[in-house]
Amino acid sequence: MILRIDRLQTELPPPSDPDPVGASAVQELLGGKFGEMSTFMNYTYQSFNFRSRQQARPFYDLVASIAAEEFGHIELVAATINTMLTGAAEGEPGEAGDLTSVKGTRNTQQFIAGGAGALVQDSMGKPWNGDYVFSSGDLLEDLTHNFFLETGARNNKLKVYEMVEHPAARALTGYLLVRGGVHQVAYARAIERLTGAELMKMFPSPRIPTEKIPECQPHIQRGEHLKLYRFSVNDYKEIAAVFNGPHPETGEELRIADEVQPEGAPPFDLPPQEAVFAPGPEPEEIAQIAARLREAAGLPKEPTGVVANNGAGVLGKVKDALG
Amino acid sequence: MILRIDRLQTELPPPSDPDPVGASAVQELLGGKFGEMSTFMNYTYQSFNFRSRQQARPFYDLVASIAAEEFGHIELVAATINTMLTGAAEGEPGEAGDLTSVKGTRNTQQFIAGGAGALVQDSMGKPWNGDYVFSSGDLLEDLTHNFFLETGARNNKLKVYEMVEHPAARALTGYLLVRGGVHQVAYARAIERLTGAELMKMFPSPRIPTEKIPECQPHIQRGEHLKLYRFSVNDYKEIAAVFNGPHPETGEELRIADEVQPEGAPPFDLPPQEAVFAPGPEPEEIAQIAARLREAAGLPKEPTGVVANNGAGVLGKVKDALG
Amino acid sequence: MILRIDRLQTELPPPSDPDPVGASAVQELLGGKFGEMSTFMNYTYQSFNFRSRQQARPFYDLVASIAAEEFGHIELVAATINTMLTGAAEGEPGEAGDLTSVKGTRNTQQFIAGGAGALVQDSMGKPWNGDYVFSSGDLLEDLTHNFFLETGARNNKLKVYEMVEHPAARALTGYLLVRGGVHQVAYARAIERLTGAELMKMFPSPRIPTEKIPECQPHIQRGEHLKLYRFSVNDYKEIAAVFNGPHPETGEELRIADEVQPEGAPPFDLPPQEAVFAPGPEPEEIAQIAARLREAAGLPKEPTGVVANNGAGVLGKVKDALG
Amino acid sequence: MILRIDRLQTELPPPSDPDPVGASAVQELLGGKFGEMSTFMNYTYQSFNFRSRQQARPFYDLVASIAAEEFGHIELVAATINTMLTGAAEGEPGEAGDLTSVKGTRNTQQFIAGGAGALVQDSMGKPWNGDYVFSSGDLLEDLTHNFFLETGARNNKLKVYEMVEHPAARALTGYLLVRGGVHQVAYARAIERLTGAELMKMFPSPRIPTEKIPECQPHIQRGEHLKLYRFSVNDYKEIAAVFNGPHPETGEELRIADEVQPEGAPPFDLPPQEAVFAPGPEPEEIAQIAARLREAAGLPKEPTGVVANNGAGVLGKVKDALG
Amino acid sequence: MILRIDRLQTELPPPSDPDPVGASAVQELLGGKFGEMSTFMNYTYQSFNFRSRQQARPFYDLVASIAAEEFGHIELVAATINTMLTGAAEGEPGEAGDLTSVKGTRNTQQFIAGGAGALVQDSMGKPWNGDYVFSSGDLLEDLTHNFFLETGARNNKLKVYEMVEHPAARALTGYLLVRGGVHQVAYARAIERLTGAELMKMFPSPRIPTEKIPECQPHIQRGEHLKLYRFSVNDYKEIAAVFNGPHPETGEELRIADEVQPEGAPPFDLPPQEAVFAPGPEPEEIAQIAARLREAAGLPKEPTGVVANNGAGVLGKVKDALG
Amino acid sequence: MILRIDRLQTELPPPSDPDPVGASAVQELLGGKFGEMSTFMNYTYQSFNFRSRQQARPFYDLVASIAAEEFGHIELVAATINTMLTGAAEGEPGEAGDLTSVKGTRNTQQFIAGGAGALVQDSMGKPWNGDYVFSSGDLLEDLTHNFFLETGARNNKLKVYEMVEHPAARALTGYLLVRGGVHQVAYARAIERLTGAELMKMFPSPRIPTEKIPECQPHIQRGEHLKLYRFSVNDYKEIAAVFNGPHPETGEELRIADEVQPEGAPPFDLPPQEAVFAPGPEPEEIAQIAARLREAAGLPKEPTGVVANNGAGVLGKVKDALG
Repeated sequence: MILRIDRLQTELPPPSDPDPVGASAVQELLGGKFGEMSTFMNYTYQSFNFRSRQQARPFYDLVASIAAEEFGHIELVAATINTMLTGAAEGEPGEAGDLTSVKGTRNTQQFIAGGAGALVQDSMGKPWNGDYVFSSGDLLEDLTHNFFLETGARNNKLKVYEMVEHPAARALTGYLLVRGGVHQVAYARAIERLTGAELMKMFPSPRIPTEKIPECQPHIQRGEHLKLYRFSVNDYKEIAAVFNGPHPETGEELRIADEVQPEGAPPFDLPPQEAVFAPGPEPEEIAQIAARLREAAGLPKEPTGVVANNGAGVLGKVKDALG
Repeated sequence: MILRIDRLQTELPPPSDPDPVGASAVQELLGGKFGEMSTFMNYTYQSFNFRSRQQARPFYDLVASIAAEEFGHIELVAATINTMLTGAAEGEPGEAGDLTSVKGTRNTQQFIAGGAGALVQDSMGKPWNGDYVFSSGDLLEDLTHNFFLETGARNNKLKVYEMVEHPAARALTGYLLVRGGVHQVAYARAIERLTGAELMKMFPSPRIPTEKIPECQPHIQRGEHLKLYRFSVNDYKEIAAVFNGPHPETGEELRIADEVQPEGAPPFDLPPQEAVFAPGPEPEEIAQIAARLREAAGLPKEPTGVVANNGAGVLGKVKDALG
Repeated sequence: MILRIDRLQTELPPPSDPDPVGASAVQELLGGKFGEMSTFMNYTYQSFNFRSRQQARPFYDLVASIAAEEFGHIELVAATINTMLTGAAEGEPGEAGDLTSVKGTRNTQQFIAGGAGALVQDSMGKPWNGDYVFSSGDLLEDLTHNFFLETGARNNKLKVYEMVEHPAARALTGYLLVRGGVHQVAYARAIERLTGAELMKMFPSPRIPTEKIPECQPHIQRGEHLKLYRFSVNDYKEIAAVFNGPHPETGEELRIADEVQPEGAPPFDLPPQEAVFAPGPEPEEIAQIAARLREAAGLPKEPTGVVANNGAGVLGKVKDALG
Repeated sequence: MILRIDRLQTELPPPSDPDPVGASAVQELLGGKFGEMSTFMNYTYQSFNFRSRQQARPFYDLVASIAAEEFGHIELVAATINTMLTGAAEGEPGEAGDLTSVKGTRNTQQFIAGGAGALVQDSMGKPWNGDYVFSSGDLLEDLTHNFFLETGARNNKLKVYEMVEHPAARALTGYLLVRGGVHQVAYARAIERLTGAELMKMFPSPRIPTEKIPECQPHIQRGEHLKLYRFSVNDYKEIAAVFNGPHPETGEELRIADEVQPEGAPPFDLPPQEAVFAPGPEPEEIAQIAARLREAAGLPKEPTGVVANNGAGVLGKVKDALG
Repeated sequence: MILRIDRLQTELPPPSDPDPVGASAVQELLGGKFGEMSTFMNYTYQSFNFRSRQQARPFYDLVASIAAEEFGHIELVAATINTMLTGAAEGEPGEAGDLTSVKGTRNTQQFIAGGAGALVQDSMGKPWNGDYVFSSGDLLEDLTHNFFLETGARNNKLKVYEMVEHPAARALTGYLLVRGGVHQVAYARAIERLTGAELMKMFPSPRIPTEKIPECQPHIQRGEHLKLYRFSVNDYKEIAAVFNGPHPETGEELRIADEVQPEGAPPFDLPPQEAVFAPGPEPEEIAQIAARLREAAGLPKEPTGVVANNGAGVLGKVKDALG
Repeated sequence: MILRIDRLQTELPPPSDPDPVGASAVQELLGGKFGEMSTFMNYTYQSFNFRSRQQARPFYDLVASIAAEEFGHIELVAATINTMLTGAAEGEPGEAGDLTSVKGTRNTQQFIAGGAGALVQDSMGKPWNGDYVFSSGDLLEDLTHNFFLETGARNNKLKVYEMVEHPAARALTGYLLVRGGVHQVAYARAIERLTGAELMKMFPSPRIPTEKIPECQPHIQRGEHLKLYRFSVNDYKEIAAVFNGPHPETGEELRIADEVQPEGAPPFDLPPQEAVFAPGPEPEEIAQIAARLREAAGLPKEPTGVVANNGAGVLGKVKDALG
């Protein structure tokens, strides 16, 4: 089972100019064959289906804990898309013409099915599906798959990085390239441990050094390209048995993070989008009901959740930005 | 982001007689339109896409924390399927005829694509897909959907309960009916809070009291039908503002659990299935490599993971049972 | 728009021995690429999308009125499947083991998703989809398609006739072969009218004379193989301009029916199947509510609907048959 | 079975400026998960699969007759799309460059697969599929679904209303919002009748009063928001037992229409689009053949069908408009 | 089995101005229901599944050899798409903004999943699928299908011809219309042979004479509209028994080509597209490795493959053209 | 383009006892994600989309020629399925009950859609689709994919080998394991050549030596595990630059075959299956027409095609076997 921490694994910029067409491209990193839904679900099901866990514990722990990190990745991609869609559908609910600005956007369902929100689809609007999950039960083969999957994922992140200039997309891909790179190394190393085959010479794949991407630099400087988190307080201790040795690109030593998970950052509380009824055509009414319920339950008057834009000042600035 | 706890939310029986045809039916509860992938992913994406979280905090917290519980549910269904498949494909790897016993099973891909393992498919082998996720951004509408989804899920659990007699399937459905019932109530209550509409008279739906199911009784006796967990150490504190009042079937008071999550139980370490190469045609080789890696990393000689059948005795019994 | 008549186009036998495996095969005639959903929807959308209707009126009328007949065909196939499933899932709702008899059936979703009911799927459980509809807008091409579609449909009906021995399936295929045969002729004749190409020599296709099928005989004797109905009180009068000339197999003259639609027969009121909650776990409660509502609305005490088994005697016999 | 009436349930404006991008968005209301194909097919199959009809007659009649109305809705959406596409692909058949104007349109298949015509797809080009049909056999659950489905459908109609400014789309959504609203109320009322739960407080959902939409006003003024039609000459008399009581938004009394179906309006005879071969590259040839066939069959010289633009004057005006 | 000849069946122009939106439309001719994947795979599987080949040899040979030609057609469509995409994604690999020029293109996966390359999808990004293959085993029915398929394919080619002005698309459709026309005639003639039905009056279908398309003229002048190739050195000799008689449009005599296959033309060696990593972010490195491997294997220093732009001069011109 | 040779790449046994359930499992090797359609189409499209062919010629030649071999593999799998289905549907066409023997088979569409024939589906009846094709344009990544694909394919072949005992399935998997193994080595070697990474230690994967499979032995003894064919008379000469060095399992030297393609064997001329109308309900009629056409075209009286069971004796034996 899992516990949630209501923080993002890395900071994302606040909404700025909306970019719905860019957001439709970013969907590839969420619901595409090589998107984060695929990495999350592949490793999750491989961990569920793992037989003989005790005897193969270091490998089980590796797959299971990386799976946990990937939840944070789908969360980040969704947050990015939502950020990019914010402000794209301004206007009054039920007012003719309010959404004409997105009539020609590439993914209309972000507005018709969703409330200017992320979908579980790829960049062509095709839904992610469960047959993207490879879980053969054969450890070596699953690892081979995972290495390939991370390679494809890295390719797609690089392409989206090149394609979409929105600051949120840049921040996202910068972070994912670094962390996905760690997973790519982890699976290659696991194969090495299991077979002796030297896969490190295949890095970087695609053959573009991660360090050349400016948006990756801050994360590299914090050593995020070298460490694996356990994403568990008590479990998955044996990842250390697999994830070690030199990094294939930099030669630095790989290591297990001291922290259970990255500190991350609180999410941005994205503003309502009334024209698409999110969180409703009249958000104020919901706010009042929520306040009353809070009070009746003896909760503090102010919301207890922590968000990036808690202070009025920040919120105001966003509203200006979206003006 | 999430942290994983390597325990199941409830105890499942160990493998006994295999039941691959039954396991193909249980898949409906995993990858079906009303399966746990749907509950997990619907609430997860609704929480990701939630706009104006602070102002609607009690509702956001409700959806976000139930989402976290649902991860435990996909884990349980997968564990059940894997348990039921254990022993169905006994034999030597690469030996002609070893899998003829499952040639006519309803879901051949559990053995051909998987290693006697769960798939992200429904009972007809159709993959779960992302368009099963409803995330309109409109809070009232999302809640209406969620109430309907839980109703459909309850229907499907009851049907699978009636259809599949394997002890693991019985234990699974007994637990899920109770916990899914809590979610069904939670969403109905949230709609009541938001609109004043009295939905409690719709319970139970389908019109079969949960307490009549013998396998639900142990959980009801522990009060599991009354409480919501936060599934977070620090967050989602405002669920208390929505989830309260009398239970529609029993009249008892709903409440927030003191514990962050259910104590649960360690998973069963399912035995290898060599004929389907899980975790490989020669599990012993993997075990030896794992032991060496553990040693080299300075980890204890014995695996650090906790599983239900840690003691040799239990493992032996399983082997006998599968004998 | 349409009006409904609550009768089947032909009589079907009452439920007898259930045949869920057979019913899963009959689904091909409902939701398969060449099933009745396809004929219904193809002609319906071709009529919706028809340009220059006035100038091409005889052809428009032909397609539009055949479309209307096809609604009756999906109704018949569904009724057949429902008849065949009746009694397959006997037992008490919520009782473990009640559905084990269908655990291994080919289409579990007829029971898990449905209440022993028809699905919009083919014989492999794949849903019918809108891309089965061909509506090019080019009249000659649409007619070419329709002739091919009816040929494929006839093939599938013959195969299901050979494959499924249940009396309802026999009655169904006997009727559909005759009426589908009329449509196959109609489209071929329309192509002849438009191009002069002689397609009548392609009959029968597949090369099995309809008259050889015993279950077709009663319909042939009533002349059902020769006439087209308008399925409209006031419209589609110009079908007579296309549908005439000799029948390719018998040489008899084709003609427009005097009646607007076949007289048909009242549907069978299929008994509840409590184990799958149809119409609910406790049908009696629904019946009582219905009776009260009827009374409050000033309606007769007895249900106003006409069904095949209205009399208590008949209903009793069915119950015996299902006993 | 059904009879067709060759009229639309409401009047639509004639073709004006084409809007293929808008038409691709309107597809969501036809083939989307919450489009009219879904409402039509859900209620149709629920009526086919209804068990114990006699005892639950008022509910059966309700579902069956609403199903019939929904056929008229798919017809209206298709007519709207066809209207919006008219003129978008002007030019000569087989002439290079004639369709370059729509090379970049969102749904190319409206022109390549179709003849500037509606498809059975959603706004992303994904085909409608049969697994959108929910027919559990459990009356209460089916009604719960239907209420949810209508809520989602209302959401989508409002979004498309905001997004697409073409007069045909406006007229369409104005009408569908009113009539779909009636169905939403009908299913909520049915649940109330069955359980006593008060759902009326959930209206309007989404929380935008229907009366605020200008395009809804003419229909509201004719009382179309209050009445249910039987859509059958002899059947479905018991809908009166369920559909009554006050309208949740206006408090006016709900009632059964005196007429069997709305009077509606004749459809527009949409002009040929030669560049996409609809009804053929040379419509004149078809017209001549049709005239000859009519004559040979003893039919009147003029087409017998009734269309909105029968008179030369109207037709001329359209041609000018498309100029 | 097959042998490959590394030549295209007809000459295509070199890359010029890129046209990614046009290329997304051309995909319909590759992966659409009526695209070349469908013709290739339909005839291929019909030949695989053909029963009683010896007794029906002329028909088997016809289907089998046309299947072989269709491989050349998928090759041509892919080459066209690749040509049209060349230059659309210029820039440096891993450089932010390099792909923004195609952020809004209709098929983003041509760049994200592919390296500015063709996909096995239709014009809406939906993948081709195996249920597009019709192989009933009934010869007459398969031929009926094939005639219909070629008719639909001809329709789609004409539409794409009208829609996409890029020289490569024009050259492609000009060629495919002629050769597909031959197949349409071949299947119609086969039906005539089998049944006596006169289908030749249905030509041309759609009703646009092939000879009116300027891009078809060069191929017609070489007689490509009259001859069938065997596409086999030793087999398929009996096609002559079916494919003969007058051409339905021109009256000229159909005949079997003296050559086994068309001479065709060498493919263009399309230049690297570094921004999408094709054939890699650093093509020079691959080239050097290839040169070394060639040398080590005793192969000539220069590549042995024959391409249209072998000479430096041509390559230079292309680079200029792509400037 | 391609030329066809009407021979199978290896000999298959004649029809014996039919095994439709086994044949439904073998479908995984045809239309499954890791089936031969996937290997065939992946390499084919990678060769189509290959940029900078001349500079990377040895790699292009490798992918292009292996693609050609894979056509022979889909042919072999289809032939196997057809062989296994022969005799399963004996009986008279149009006779009720003739197909009841396969009413419960796992893949009914082999009989309803097909004529006891192979489908382009996997073992669950899901169609193969074009998104199974990975063609990133990045050579290293495509090769990584191909190595993974061959590994998954080897896994599935081994599983089907274990699962299906029919002699045709055994012969098929024995051959495919050897030849697929060559491709797995070829792609691993190509990666080595490109990066220096030593992948040979990953063999065998799955970890079952090929030589242990008795049905592989005859092919190994002929050296089929060591050589690559060019499958082209004039092209693909540079495969020698990549495919060389020691075999990872045996240490023997890899080499390019002297022959262009394997000699193979003539296909079996499978007998008619009248009950499913293959090649028609009355095959004799087709045979007579074929004979007349042959004569009219001046062809020999006897069919010119070469099949395994040309002599009457053999054919007779088959008929006996099927008796």
